[in-house]
Amino acid sequence: MELPAHVTELTFFARLERFTIETPSWAYTDTGTRFGKFLQDAAATTIEEKLADAAEVHRYTGCCPNVAVHVLWDFPAGYDPQAIARRAEELGVRIGAINPNVFQDQCYKWGSVANRDPVIRRRAMQHILDSIAIGRQVGSRVLSLWFADGTNYPGQASIRERKRWFQAALREVHEALPADMAMLIEYKPFEPAFYHTDIADWGMAYVLARHAGPRAKILVDTGHHLPGANIEHIVAFLLDEQMLGGFHFNDRKYADDDLTMGSIDPYQLFRIFYEIAAAEHAAGRDLDIAYMIDQSHNLKPKIEAMIQTVMTAQEHFAKALLVDHEALARAQKREDLVLAENILRDAYLTDVRPLLAEWRQSRKLPPNPLQAFRESGYAERVAKERGPRKKGDAGGYA
Amino acid sequence: MELPAHVTELTFFARLERFTIETPSWAYTDTGTRFGKFLQDAAATTIEEKLADAAEVHRYTGCCPNVAVHVLWDFPAGYDPQAIARRAEELGVRIGAINPNVFQDQCYKWGSVANRDPVIRRRAMQHILDSIAIGRQVGSRVLSLWFADGTNYPGQASIRERKRWFQAALREVHEALPADMAMLIEYKPFEPAFYHTDIADWGMAYVLARHAGPRAKILVDTGHHLPGANIEHIVAFLLDEQMLGGFHFNDRKYADDDLTMGSIDPYQLFRIFYEIAAAEHAAGRDLDIAYMIDQSHNLKPKIEAMIQTVMTAQEHFAKALLVDHEALARAQKREDLVLAENILRDAYLTDVRPLLAEWRQSRKLPPNPLQAFRESGYAERVAKERGPRKKGDAGGYA
Amino acid sequence: MELPAHVTELTFFARLERFTIETPSWAYTDTGTRFGKFLQDAAATTIEEKLADAAEVHRYTGCCPNVAVHVLWDFPAGYDPQAIARRAEELGVRIGAINPNVFQDQCYKWGSVANRDPVIRRRAMQHILDSIAIGRQVGSRVLSLWFADGTNYPGQASIRERKRWFQAALREVHEALPADMAMLIEYKPFEPAFYHTDIADWGMAYVLARHAGPRAKILVDTGHHLPGANIEHIVAFLLDEQMLGGFHFNDRKYADDDLTMGSIDPYQLFRIFYEIAAAEHAAGRDLDIAYMIDQSHNLKPKIEAMIQTVMTAQEHFAKALLVDHEALARAQKREDLVLAENILRDAYLTDVRPLLAEWRQSRKLPPNPLQAFRESGYAERVAKERGPRKKGDAGGYA
Amino acid sequence: MELPAHVTELTFFARLERFTIETPSWAYTDTGTRFGKFLQDAAATTIEEKLADAAEVHRYTGCCPNVAVHVLWDFPAGYDPQAIARRAEELGVRIGAINPNVFQDQCYKWGSVANRDPVIRRRAMQHILDSIAIGRQVGSRVLSLWFADGTNYPGQASIRERKRWFQAALREVHEALPADMAMLIEYKPFEPAFYHTDIADWGMAYVLARHAGPRAKILVDTGHHLPGANIEHIVAFLLDEQMLGGFHFNDRKYADDDLTMGSIDPYQLFRIFYEIAAAEHAAGRDLDIAYMIDQSHNLKPKIEAMIQTVMTAQEHFAKALLVDHEALARAQKREDLVLAENILRDAYLTDVRPLLAEWRQSRKLPPNPLQAFRESGYAERVAKERGPRKKGDAGGYA
Repeated sequence: MELPAHVTELTFFARLERFTIETPSWAYTDTGTRFGKFLQDAAATTIEEKLADAAEVHRYTGCCPNVAVHVLWDFPAGYDPQAIARRAEELGVRIGAINPNVFQDQCYKWGSVANRDPVIRRRAMQHILDSIAIGRQVGSRVLSLWFADGTNYPGQASIRERKRWFQAALREVHEALPADMAMLIEYKPFEPAFYHTDIADWGMAYVLARHAGPRAKILVDTGHHLPGANIEHIVAFLLDEQMLGGFHFNDRKYADDDLTMGSIDPYQLFRIFYEIAAAEHAAGRDLDIAYMIDQSHNLKPKIEAMIQTVMTAQEHFAKALLVDHEALARAQKREDLVLAENILRDAYLTDVRPLLAEWRQSRKLPPNPLQAFRESGYAERVAKERGPRKKGDAGGYA
Repeated sequence: MELPAHVTELTFFARLERFTIETPSWAYTDTGTRFGKFLQDAAATTIEEKLADAAEVHRYTGCCPNVAVHVLWDFPAGYDPQAIARRAEELGVRIGAINPNVFQDQCYKWGSVANRDPVIRRRAMQHILDSIAIGRQVGSRVLSLWFADGTNYPGQASIRERKRWFQAALREVHEALPADMAMLIEYKPFEPAFYHTDIADWGMAYVLARHAGPRAKILVDTGHHLPGANIEHIVAFLLDEQMLGGFHFNDRKYADDDLTMGSIDPYQLFRIFYEIAAAEHAAGRDLDIAYMIDQSHNLKPKIEAMIQTVMTAQEHFAKALLVDHEALARAQKREDLVLAENILRDAYLTDVRPLLAEWRQSRKLPPNPLQAFRESGYAERVAKERGPRKKGDAGGYA
Repeated sequence: MELPAHVTELTFFARLERFTIETPSWAYTDTGTRFGKFLQDAAATTIEEKLADAAEVHRYTGCCPNVAVHVLWDFPAGYDPQAIARRAEELGVRIGAINPNVFQDQCYKWGSVANRDPVIRRRAMQHILDSIAIGRQVGSRVLSLWFADGTNYPGQASIRERKRWFQAALREVHEALPADMAMLIEYKPFEPAFYHTDIADWGMAYVLARHAGPRAKILVDTGHHLPGANIEHIVAFLLDEQMLGGFHFNDRKYADDDLTMGSIDPYQLFRIFYEIAAAEHAAGRDLDIAYMIDQSHNLKPKIEAMIQTVMTAQEHFAKALLVDHEALARAQKREDLVLAENILRDAYLTDVRPLLAEWRQSRKLPPNPLQAFRESGYAERVAKERGPRKKGDAGGYA
Repeated sequence: MELPAHVTELTFFARLERFTIETPSWAYTDTGTRFGKFLQDAAATTIEEKLADAAEVHRYTGCCPNVAVHVLWDFPAGYDPQAIARRAEELGVRIGAINPNVFQDQCYKWGSVANRDPVIRRRAMQHILDSIAIGRQVGSRVLSLWFADGTNYPGQASIRERKRWFQAALREVHEALPADMAMLIEYKPFEPAFYHTDIADWGMAYVLARHAGPRAKILVDTGHHLPGANIEHIVAFLLDEQMLGGFHFNDRKYADDDLTMGSIDPYQLFRIFYEIAAAEHAAGRDLDIAYMIDQSHNLKPKIEAMIQTVMTAQEHFAKALLVDHEALARAQKREDLVLAENILRDAYLTDVRPLLAEWRQSRKLPPNPLQAFRESGYAERVAKERGPRKKGDAGGYA
């Protein structure tokens, strides 16, 4: 299959080569909803298993060298972070973003860094500072911050007071960052807080990042918006402000459904990548954006789902690389709406799968990573090893 | 405080006297979100504890004689339903709606009555038939059916095929009903299924109920609608079709947040009760509607929250009783929008708390049930008894 | 380009050949938002101009032989419907669905068939009966009913009383239908009514259609749903109930935005067509569904936008024809979610534009209808003729 | 009726006395939806009539001394702004916020200050500068900026390029402001633009205001949010940032419905006022916030609806003044959720209408302004004068 005339090897294959996306350790484990978890024999339990699974994904796709980690789940007390980093390297991957967890312990019932109790605020801060220290040890360049803090009922707390606790905390985090580490601030409109979430939208994350310091940027989780939000608009706006730090990719139809990237609204995914491609085209260089996956595959087999996700990411990134920026600019200049839209659609409607297969083969990767993984027998093997350790109980709602 | 001139003792106090609302056994236990549970020492664990807590609510409010039960959680194998019913009676309450649970077991990963596997469909059906049998034994008049069935991804299953399994199953349930039992079919747009939920809206519940038989009615959970849905319109429509079976009350701001009834949008709650009051006014009699609460108090103390809920229910039901139907009809007839709206608002803006306190005192109930419960020391006492049995672990997301 | 092995000429090209979609006369005129209209010189004003424009669309696409008409705008008093039908035929098109208009006149301020005033209800009914008579005269087989009826404020009217007026009216309409005419009932959650709309969702349309009679079916306008609604689920459900009458296609991001079909969420459009393709595959025959466009191109040139729309409709219908139903059923049977989803995606990701170009050439149609139309000079010509007649004033908000 | 013990005359009646709310000139005219306008004989047409009607509202409520004006509609070429200001004064009101209109003219089809064409950008800028000049002449202190700019389709324009045009334009506006004038930047997610709106949310307005200069603040229109947005959270956040400039009040159930303030979600209105009351309590002084109404009464009589609105505004502002801040802080400190929430609810549930009647009588105002206006015969009188001038045509959709 040939590239369109306006696209060169350099702007397509070479850029595709530099596109990597980080998979999260927690996507390889059993997860669920508040109504229960459906357990999978092959799901990982330990950090070693998670890294091994992530390495499988990288083996077949060639574009997932980094693994995001959750400090609480992946570095329990007593673990040596450097040993984990070495284990990752042996498996062919590296530790990526460091995610502190300040929402799960009983002490965080009323919040973490916005808890009214200074002891808990300090405890949360210490966990974040510890996470930065782990990040230093394992060579991570990204501290990824999501806070569940919020309230469930009007009157429960002072929104303004909590905002100030957040400001102070994020400034302190910024001061503790090593020079080569960025802190990404994530936002989310609701869940698990159901009345107000302290960092509810990109605007709040933006203001708090500005208060914190220059290495604080925004993390866009594509599932964390109210219905109808134009995510690519937010992305373009943040790009222009040089405040876009990265993404947590997933898809959704209703709330924060954590479905596979591009499984519900693939055109939106394309439009997000298009805004980035356009900004890179204008800048004449790659932009420093952390592409990360954050999904929760309750029903799909974990590794398969992740490979499907990564292939989808590559496909839509590749489609965005096919947009003819010059032709588009000309059509826009004439206010030729139908043509301008069709130029975007031409790229989107192109079936890039043969191009990706070609690129994979040039890199000695299987042309169809999913099929190759299925044929490897890995999933069946680990299911046999890991399955018997699982307990029958799946928690649940009440 | 005096009643407005157009309201009589009969239409207000006597009707209020007949207003009861059912509390659910699972509201007295520890619950949470997929991000974790925050445990409470005083939360109930056993059915005896749940009934005791429900009886406390009834003791102080005088309007919660019935307790809805969840078969899986409340009637584990080996329990004698009649013994439980007797225990309830000793405590001063009765068993209300029977809720089968066909969503939590591992076997329901791909659905219950719409599972492709006939063995699982049969197992789900058997559980529902067993639930009916329990209902008979304990004298329940309502079988309350909520199904989590659905799919997470396009292509996962045939929507039409699953619909037909539902039709067949609900007909079979209907055939097994005793003559004095109704089956209420609940709908929900999403969660835990995130692409399609087999019974997604009231229309689907309605069609399935019509296919099932005359004792199948619709259950409206006030948290189970898409953003903007006009719930009171659905209520009025179902009333006119004689298809409204009952309610699961709670409140929400975003998704199925399961917050305290009336805590976010109290005017909507009033408008729902107004539609019922108007229909009862037109019919000249009480309508047979099961008023039930279905909330999940993650942060509030369980019994307190329930008393607060019941007081809110009574307040808004009472406000709806104050509407001047004749004056409203006259204003409507003249298309006098401002006056018509103000007639509703007059009722809503009236502070009915003194009227309720008066009614409570006439029934030898404490005028402020919440305060009376707080002063009773019950919560502290059971916390001391129950707390030590709790495990430290709260489950959680991954 | 070759068809996939599982698709035959018969299931693809022959079915594509039978796919036609109706364009609406009002899409060729100047439209706008409440904030104003932006006028286009080439926009049509008279019914002759609208038919001529619709005929242009059919000339280039070959799949739009029918033109939906709006009685109030297209058949003003004194017009001879048969003369209009003859004019359509001369231009190479036919009159399609008949749309009464009972929302625009001042008399409908408080509603049409649900107006409290029996004189207005009768006037609305007479207009609908007149529309049926026009339909008979021009050989239309579809009466398409959209009602703006509703209220703006709580208390404005009795929802139940208005429902009964609707029941009576729709029964009367059904009785007046000729034997070969269907009545399609459209629903819409809001706008122009902002508190309650009498036919707010598919469930209400369904119940009213059942009350009306067997030739009453549901019309799904893809822009008339609350955020998150799973439209293909509704479509599948109605197909199974044999109650799907037809579509008004358009796309939206927020409310009833009336954007070009497939311009915002093309995958959803594919999934809707997939549900139909699956039902036709199961039935072994084409289903009787009226495919109609209902958009309001405020900014795009009218005819261009319509050709773009029709091409999009054909593309997504064609993609749906590529789904491998047998392979999908096998994957579903094994609960192989990733494969099942990918089978749908394989069809969606296929670039069908070469197949459509091939089909067009086999029918002596231009392979790229949009380009051919642009090169024809029609738009420039009619702009010159029609432009001078336009007034400078565009109405507007206040 | 007595004030609660924790509320003094000073914090209640004196603060209520200082609460004023601005009515907009365009609320007194005929308005509609894109489906048509329903005309009212009594609706105003000229600026003199609008001011006269606004003066009526102030006469009966005593809290609406200012009238917002729309430059395009209220100051047509040739009008002397100072003459209009004098006329207002004669009638007992003053000119309030100045609203430029850069969305209605045909030249703004592709945008105003973000139009690609520098000639149009300059024309829009000149209109805004002219509006500032008018503002100076009439002594206005607020320039209120709403832009309809945006796009309808992906690819139509470069989002980032348009953002920069906005930045440049708003800086220029800021430079032209007199020292005592603030510029308020309004945001809106959609309509009339249906793909992207250049200033879509408060975050974009915030960033642009920061770029513009210190006298640029945010204008919160309560109808301009996506479903579920927590408006009081945004208000509290902006208050803490000292960036809240003012409000456009109205209510909504679905989109930007422009319904009467508090008619759909009165508790939300209370919570907004509560956040302000809490911030004023903390600051120990009134905050400088422009309270303005922006509604579009399609069905209600104009002046009546405005009086109803103003009464609702006063009622909910008064309820917010009843919150016991000290008791609330104590309950919050103990994480006593139920009590904290009930403290808010105590204020909300209080029927303040007798207190307002008392305050009105102390100011020689009618205790029930709506009834007093109805009895005045003003509406009937102006209907007779103005009605005959109305044309029969109401524009409409197509």
